[in-house]
Amino acid sequence: MDKQTIDRRIHAIAGDREHGASELARRCLEIAADSALHYPALDTPALTAILTAQARDMSAARPSMAPIHNLLSRWRKELRGLSGLDLSTARRRAANAAKAVVMVSQAACRQVALHAQSLVGERQCVITHSLSSTLLQAFSGLQGRSVNLIVTESRPLCEGRNLALQLSEMGFPVTLITDAQLGLFVEKADLAMVGADSVLEDGTVVNKVGTYLLALAARERSVPFYVCCESFKQRDSNMPPFEPEEMSPDELNVGELPTVEIRNIYFDLTPPELITARVSEEGVIRYRLDKRC
Amino acid sequence: MDKQTIDRRIHAIAGDREHGASELARRCLEIAADSALHYPALDTPALTAILTAQARDMSAARPSMAPIHNLLSRWRKELRGLSGLDLSTARRRAANAAKAVVMVSQAACRQVALHAQSLVGERQCVITHSLSSTLLQAFSGLQGRSVNLIVTESRPLCEGRNLALQLSEMGFPVTLITDAQLGLFVEKADLAMVGADSVLEDGTVVNKVGTYLLALAARERSVPFYVCCESFKQRDSNMPPFEPEEMSPDELNVGELPTVEIRNIYFDLTPPELITARVSEEGVIRYRLDKRC
Repeated sequence: MDKQTIDRRIHAIAGDREHGASELARRCLEIAADSALHYPALDTPALTAILTAQARDMSAARPSMAPIHNLLSRWRKELRGLSGLDLSTARRRAANAAKAVVMVSQAACRQVALHAQSLVGERQCVITHSLSSTLLQAFSGLQGRSVNLIVTESRPLCEGRNLALQLSEMGFPVTLITDAQLGLFVEKADLAMVGADSVLEDGTVVNKVGTYLLALAARERSVPFYVCCESFKQRDSNMPPFEPEEMSPDELNVGELPTVEIRNIYFDLTPPELITARVSEEGVIRYRLDKRC
Repeated sequence: MDKQTIDRRIHAIAGDREHGASELARRCLEIAADSALHYPALDTPALTAILTAQARDMSAARPSMAPIHNLLSRWRKELRGLSGLDLSTARRRAANAAKAVVMVSQAACRQVALHAQSLVGERQCVITHSLSSTLLQAFSGLQGRSVNLIVTESRPLCEGRNLALQLSEMGFPVTLITDAQLGLFVEKADLAMVGADSVLEDGTVVNKVGTYLLALAARERSVPFYVCCESFKQRDSNMPPFEPEEMSPDELNVGELPTVEIRNIYFDLTPPELITARVSEEGVIRYRLDKRC
């Protein structure tokens, strides 16, 4: 693992569309662990300075994704304990600390998945939007409960197709719809369930754009709307103000429209009054009362 | 214009995704006029029977589209007056009657467009979904008023891209978004405006899927929501119960997902309580009271 490889992996975080916020946060920590072990440094203070700067760069690369900030912050606290250690011990200690944070994060996601599963009854139908690795884990534990799943394609990159394929391979009956059909299909579901990229201080949920429309339609049709994510997704007042990320218009693949402004904002905001409950590693925290839940 | 050509054109009505309901209804009448003039028939009763059956076939081919039913019904009433006429007079009379109905429909759309224009103020921003020929006509009359337009791509066939291009060529600043971004962009607009494929007896509007989500978001953000369509779009109790059309899943172009059910329902229903006003050839009929309109 040389310097160039690590620099390239740090740089790739900004452009990663493949992974959700939690997975990407863990990927950052894996990079951090490799950097701790292998990045050129003359002594422990130099190593600590490098690792701190890299962690800050990775956080700044995806400002919408609270878990990257939170997991790396947790790890950076551990770096304070390195001063006084010789370089090779410091390297090992920093790498182990990063791996430990990864494990805490994985354990939290597993707990969220378990609590999410408890909300889905035998032969129920769940509608979701975008691809959440936590939800995928939850659904994978539902095999055998005859659960039906409705999945949106999730423009622009259509990660919902990948989710549909994975769920179908697990044996679930899966229906794939365009995002625009959310309003039609929400009433066929017993519950709506999404992941989150971040949760703002007031409980507003940041998730793939279209989530807000699903939440509005779910409330209108009295379908419970659950947001499933571990507490590392919570933003706090130490973070910079939330600004939704905007990606390249090329992702819409519209061809030549030179005089048209093409917008590609990735996340929207779902306020707490549209959310039935949040599912965290602690359990199910109810926000609103519904007839059907 | 031979028999085969006319049969082929009638057959093509079912698969036409290019034209909206009003345009397609007028296209049906143009086919009807050509058929009246050229379709093989031994005498006037035989011609009348053929034209009646063709009109019925075209109506049945697009059951979601009330104007096809309404305009063809209006024309079929004229066919009753043909009995007793010689074949060549009957042919001319039936063709002229079809052309007259086309003109009535065009005049109604022009009136709707004029009333719609009256709702858009200088430097205002209008958000719309899908491509309505009536709205395109309305917008074309707004050149010079510095109006901004936000247009959705409108999956699956993305006719919104075509709309964006046409509006941009007219000189409007146009923003193109994915359907999923409707909830983010609705609050940037002063008003939302859509066309309609049909209006049900209770005032519920049938339009391109996604319209309902725009209407929900518009109400949530106190943005007035206008539906612009001529009264030929009104369904009445003589029509078969409304059933939304579903098109081929291939239109979603998702590639190989053999075990996933792909749905492609074209229309959704927007109930009157989400509609600020309907704009018809008669004028602007208010449904709900909004702060901002």
